[in-house]
Amino acid sequence: MIKPLKTADLIIAAGTDAADLRYVSGFAAPDSFLWFRCGGECAIVVSQLEYSRALASVKPGVNVLLLENLGARSWVDAALTIARSRGIGTFRVPADFPLALAERLRGGCVGVVAQMGTFCPERQFKSQTEKDAIIRALRVTEQGMRRAVEVIGAASVGNDGVLRYDGEILTSERLRFEIDSRLLRLGAVAVDTIAAAGVQSAAPHQVGSGPIRAGVPIVIDIFPRMNDSGYWGDLTRTVAKQEMAPVVAAAYDAVKRARDLTEPMMVPGAIPADIHCRAQQILTEAGFPTGRDQNGAYGFFHSLGHGVGLEIHEDPRISPGNRQPLRGGEVITDEPGVYYPAWGGVRLENMIYVGQNGAERLTVIEDDPVIP
Amino acid sequence: MIKPLKTADLIIAAGTDAADLRYVSGFAAPDSFLWFRCGGECAIVVSQLEYSRALASVKPGVNVLLLENLGARSWVDAALTIARSRGIGTFRVPADFPLALAERLRGGCVGVVAQMGTFCPERQFKSQTEKDAIIRALRVTEQGMRRAVEVIGAASVGNDGVLRYDGEILTSERLRFEIDSRLLRLGAVAVDTIAAAGVQSAAPHQVGSGPIRAGVPIVIDIFPRMNDSGYWGDLTRTVAKQEMAPVVAAAYDAVKRARDLTEPMMVPGAIPADIHCRAQQILTEAGFPTGRDQNGAYGFFHSLGHGVGLEIHEDPRISPGNRQPLRGGEVITDEPGVYYPAWGGVRLENMIYVGQNGAERLTVIEDDPVIP
Repeated sequence: MIKPLKTADLIIAAGTDAADLRYVSGFAAPDSFLWFRCGGECAIVVSQLEYSRALASVKPGVNVLLLENLGARSWVDAALTIARSRGIGTFRVPADFPLALAERLRGGCVGVVAQMGTFCPERQFKSQTEKDAIIRALRVTEQGMRRAVEVIGAASVGNDGVLRYDGEILTSERLRFEIDSRLLRLGAVAVDTIAAAGVQSAAPHQVGSGPIRAGVPIVIDIFPRMNDSGYWGDLTRTVAKQEMAPVVAAAYDAVKRARDLTEPMMVPGAIPADIHCRAQQILTEAGFPTGRDQNGAYGFFHSLGHGVGLEIHEDPRISPGNRQPLRGGEVITDEPGVYYPAWGGVRLENMIYVGQNGAERLTVIEDDPVIP
Repeated sequence: MIKPLKTADLIIAAGTDAADLRYVSGFAAPDSFLWFRCGGECAIVVSQLEYSRALASVKPGVNVLLLENLGARSWVDAALTIARSRGIGTFRVPADFPLALAERLRGGCVGVVAQMGTFCPERQFKSQTEKDAIIRALRVTEQGMRRAVEVIGAASVGNDGVLRYDGEILTSERLRFEIDSRLLRLGAVAVDTIAAAGVQSAAPHQVGSGPIRAGVPIVIDIFPRMNDSGYWGDLTRTVAKQEMAPVVAAAYDAVKRARDLTEPMMVPGAIPADIHCRAQQILTEAGFPTGRDQNGAYGFFHSLGHGVGLEIHEDPRISPGNRQPLRGGEVITDEPGVYYPAWGGVRLENMIYVGQNGAERLTVIEDDPVIP
């Protein structure tokens, strides 16, 4: 009779944004390290360079092994050594596990099975500690938004309709700097903060550039990551200096309605696709249809929302394709928007906790579309 | 007679830091997109959300296709559709191509071969445009360092030996904020900027926390990425307020010697391992040996340098394991350091262009170890 080989979990990844690795180990590093779980054993393997930092950071129950002590010269060597010494026949790895590492492990006669979908499905359901970390990130995010509103409020409007601030023309770049600098002071880093004005705001991922004018929509989407915890905040507001053109104001009302009427639907048992479609229906009925013409897509052409945690975009997706019911414990965004090349876009975003007793809005900052 | 199937190149990746994808396409996006090259055809496939931005950004010769127009609902669908319509039998993909995508492509009867090592080996050899982009990033990085020196210079020293700045105790966190804020103003984002003082600086990746004292080494390692170009700068200096303890000053001299004597070795034909070992030899001869005891590693226990470009750490590695000769055109760091738990560390880093006529130092900021 032979002893059957075991199956173990394995991650080899790099970067402080390697979310699964950080979640299971508690540790984050710029360079690669390895994590495995085999039966009751759970450990990371790090290089000498990271040993002391790793010891100080790992979650309870996670051991720290030194690459050099395994007699290994590479992560593949280390994984093969671990497989041999523990009797492991197959590693289960995340969907994004590097193909080349998988091929080399297979060349060493160990099976590698990619986990389709989510490697740590429990990451969707936040612990109290995680929820607190996300709320803290969101409070910092809101301070970034307050800074933006403060700057636009302090700006004057020239005879040419262009905003002036601090003796200069106020550009998207300057507004972004003012937001990002405030976030930095509060321990968070933002990349690609969106401050897109006028027709630029018609492209949802356009970060914006150049002078900002009075009266046009300014889409401000702020999504920083806390340096200490690694958790993200996410917040979008659309504002205008002094006045909002009638079509933009109408779009604003419709988007706000779509956001606020979908919020109470974010409860255990709800189907994400249904929530998304309800938002689309509200927008269409308000006169803001979704479609496509020779200029591309217009209307509401992104998902209503997404999970937020150690990744800015994670499960669950609140999208037309997701029919997996919410279970409770998710932190998700509720961010309808409409976009038309003729005048720009409006997007409004809150973060919602899917509580067992109903949807709990985590965002506290007010909606103030027109800044005097 | 049958028509043989073609081999094509394929990348599916996400994130503005997906360096190979950005290099081959000219485009960067937070969400996934697909790039392929088949014979004379080169194109990216993007979702509607990114279409207009992609059109405006791609390199000459790269077409932009819409996911929806391929009748595809996923990137795997899109790749299989492309394979069928072009007669592609095998895709060559980068080493870090996600295993789950590879398995699904294979399930669709297309071969997938991971390129071991570097997918775009030409990325090591910088064009003039790339070299200029790196120099621009380095000039911004140097402004961050000047800000650090300015703040430490403006700080006073309390009777307790702790630095005061702007009415507060000067901490590593505050110093990091001052550096990162300057970088932000100049269009660059830094994560994990190191400002580690005293014994904290003995761990090379320790970012530093808490009050900074006079007389101790402060290792400042700044590596921001330019928002527009995506290229990185990298710079390390070690400074002390008012005075440097004799052992630290001796280590400083040895590290500076190791850096400056290895610089002229960075020429076409040189073996990176030899350059690394020369630095180690200089440090050992100066009385700063490398080794390991019960507290872990001490001395010079990281690589001498690495390539810099669209990734902060890329090929070529200037490490004991790399015997692949330099060819010319590389931009690499020259950053020896020594670390001892008893007093901390010293690291000094310049960036070097491996020119056909010799090593060209790109870093222009001076070495000023003691700040009055």
